[in-house]
Amino acid sequence: MGKDGVGIGLVGLGTIGTGVVKVLQQNAEVISERLGFPLRLVRIADLDLDTDRGVDLSGVRFDSDSEGLLDDPEVQIVVELIGGYDVARRLTLAAIERGKHVVTANKALLALHGAEIFDAAAERGVDVAFEASVGGGIPILRSLREGLSANQITSLHGIMNGTTNYVLTQMESSGEPFEVVLKRAQDLGYAEADPSFDVDGIDAAHKLTLLVAMAFGARLTFKDIPTEGIRGLTPLDFEAAERFGCKIKLLGIAKAHEDGRIEARVHPTLIPATSLLAHVDGAMNAIAVHGNAVGPTLFYGAGAGEMPTASAVVADLMEIARELRRGSAGRVAPLSYAPQHLRPRPMVSLGDLYGRAYLRFTALDRPGVLSHIAGALGEQGIGIESVIQQARGSEAESVPVVILTHPVREAAVRAALAEVDRLPDVTAPTLFLRIEDET
Amino acid sequence: MGKDGVGIGLVGLGTIGTGVVKVLQQNAEVISERLGFPLRLVRIADLDLDTDRGVDLSGVRFDSDSEGLLDDPEVQIVVELIGGYDVARRLTLAAIERGKHVVTANKALLALHGAEIFDAAAERGVDVAFEASVGGGIPILRSLREGLSANQITSLHGIMNGTTNYVLTQMESSGEPFEVVLKRAQDLGYAEADPSFDVDGIDAAHKLTLLVAMAFGARLTFKDIPTEGIRGLTPLDFEAAERFGCKIKLLGIAKAHEDGRIEARVHPTLIPATSLLAHVDGAMNAIAVHGNAVGPTLFYGAGAGEMPTASAVVADLMEIARELRRGSAGRVAPLSYAPQHLRPRPMVSLGDLYGRAYLRFTALDRPGVLSHIAGALGEQGIGIESVIQQARGSEAESVPVVILTHPVREAAVRAALAEVDRLPDVTAPTLFLRIEDET
Repeated sequence: MGKDGVGIGLVGLGTIGTGVVKVLQQNAEVISERLGFPLRLVRIADLDLDTDRGVDLSGVRFDSDSEGLLDDPEVQIVVELIGGYDVARRLTLAAIERGKHVVTANKALLALHGAEIFDAAAERGVDVAFEASVGGGIPILRSLREGLSANQITSLHGIMNGTTNYVLTQMESSGEPFEVVLKRAQDLGYAEADPSFDVDGIDAAHKLTLLVAMAFGARLTFKDIPTEGIRGLTPLDFEAAERFGCKIKLLGIAKAHEDGRIEARVHPTLIPATSLLAHVDGAMNAIAVHGNAVGPTLFYGAGAGEMPTASAVVADLMEIARELRRGSAGRVAPLSYAPQHLRPRPMVSLGDLYGRAYLRFTALDRPGVLSHIAGALGEQGIGIESVIQQARGSEAESVPVVILTHPVREAAVRAALAEVDRLPDVTAPTLFLRIEDET
Repeated sequence: MGKDGVGIGLVGLGTIGTGVVKVLQQNAEVISERLGFPLRLVRIADLDLDTDRGVDLSGVRFDSDSEGLLDDPEVQIVVELIGGYDVARRLTLAAIERGKHVVTANKALLALHGAEIFDAAAERGVDVAFEASVGGGIPILRSLREGLSANQITSLHGIMNGTTNYVLTQMESSGEPFEVVLKRAQDLGYAEADPSFDVDGIDAAHKLTLLVAMAFGARLTFKDIPTEGIRGLTPLDFEAAERFGCKIKLLGIAKAHEDGRIEARVHPTLIPATSLLAHVDGAMNAIAVHGNAVGPTLFYGAGAGEMPTASAVVADLMEIARELRRGSAGRVAPLSYAPQHLRPRPMVSLGDLYGRAYLRFTALDRPGVLSHIAGALGEQGIGIESVIQQARGSEAESVPVVILTHPVREAAVRAALAEVDRLPDVTAPTLFLRIEDET
């Protein structure tokens, strides 16, 4: 054990890693005061030793030797911030193997290899803490684990990806198409050069995987979660949503059904404009949790970024360090709703979902086309609540027709769309968005 | 120690106490699973043994002997839910004296006698947990203590009283006067027969006292907090606020100044209608916290009520029970930012506040009255951003004149109002509301 405080080793000195160094330095005094002893950053490993990160690393051993860091007896807790799957997995397992506690922000790693990692940690009696992996600085995992621990969690849903929320907020306010807004987000650094991870909903699905584990004790990987991104949205969809009293947000949604099944999905969703989530704009995140005792709750904050994510990493460091000093470390992970005891749970299939649907058809502007579409919906017993049809004048031109349905089983919607998309007047696949009325 | 789980003794079987019994019973399975052992309700004390609370108390000793409960070796944690000051204080100190850990929802008790109670607990090495005392089911104290532990908290503000928020929301939507809405709230059970505690801001000031202690390590009692209630608001104020792009909420506000001073106050406040807090309606609560690493966060949920409050009480029970089993109980309270180490901090006086002001004058509808008012403001260097004047036709009648100022020191506003309220045309004291632009 470090002579002076608990020793930290940091692997990966990118944006978040630099944020961790800044928080440990800038807030050293309150951290020491709250713990009763300091956190001591003893060692950093990164392949890039040249870039100036704008932080003072004097007194910290900084080299590219991550193996040496893991073996360093001064290092009691390893912070894994290299990201990605394979190297991060090997490093995390190697740290656990050496009896080091691990703090990570790597949602991709845990969503894919969580079972293996938590099993290894439980066996070795070390902690793996991961608050920073979901919701950035929002203490949502702790709130599930501690604050709402007396509840059966019945549902959760939220805005779990800041990049897509930034793009959607901009599309809504500017009326510009997806590609234009995405380009600007990339120029501003809000979106990656390859944006798929964010805009296709994969990042949100990773986070939802972890939330579902914490909330429902369900073991699944993110591949089990039906995921749709935001590429198909057009400015018209935001206008139409507004006329229906709604906003469009990319939500991760999970519910525990009474029959033991779990519902989990990520997709762009229409939500009432009056709901709190509808007012979560820009790159901010918010996660609503419903517990059987507490009722509805919501946790809001920055879902990404150097300092907010570092805030969560250092909170994890403080928790483990405190347990180390008490002699009861190795207990944090098992208390994370015992990840190694997660059980597979049957999933609700999309066809079984029930709710209102937003349908944007693309059809030639001919007489009778609405009748054909309405007919196909009617055959599946789908009632129409509202229609927005914009005539353009020329019969040769495709125009959008937006229909809001009454609540309906999704299987019926899919059957109807299969019919509609075969109609000769319908010139492009129909966009189908789900509406969540209870947000 | 109880043979089977950790033993709980409950004093006070009112609304919240009954909720605690329900949560312990309904969620017994998840509680045991998460802890690894059950919480065992062994004993309840209340003076009223006759009322049917609709819960099954078989297997629980239920009598009026609170002293016997404190002495019962089966009782390891005492839940104090009798409310009020004196009896609750004596009971809590007696429990601590006997080495029992205490969970309480009694914000009034802690806001007034917190220093004495936490000192006694620290000396005896027991925990006093009080999550339920602020924000009902919202895990706000835990979030400050654990989730945001790596941050210097720079400010917090929020809707901390559900009754007043219900009244304000109703006044805004119905356009009815305070008295009418309050009467309805009382009929519906949202407000007490004697509503002073809520509508005069006292309850919010109690909660803010605890939040300030947690967030800033500042020791103060609620009497140190300037507090204004909502009785003076009229329907016109909500209309005028809307025209200024604002909503009116009763906020508790606290800020840590860089010079070490603490700002803390409770009053009806104009906030931008676009802010999240502006959309927190009805009896719900929400507390926004700003940390130097995490940035802005917000925590939303039911601020009162049987089950939400019980959710927080049982979360505290689970935390202490876990520490008991680990052999490290008595550490929860010291980790609550070490309440026994709280330090008195100099307070910012109201005169030093700086911001826009909302002023509603009541004046005879005579030519020149606006000029007199504007003159008095001008003499104090107060710039006018906007004026709403409703002429009524008769010079003998008093009419409201609403003025929105540019940002100004509050001392200047007070000096100007002292002048204005002496003017012969001004027939009633001026209503002054603060505007918080950064919410």
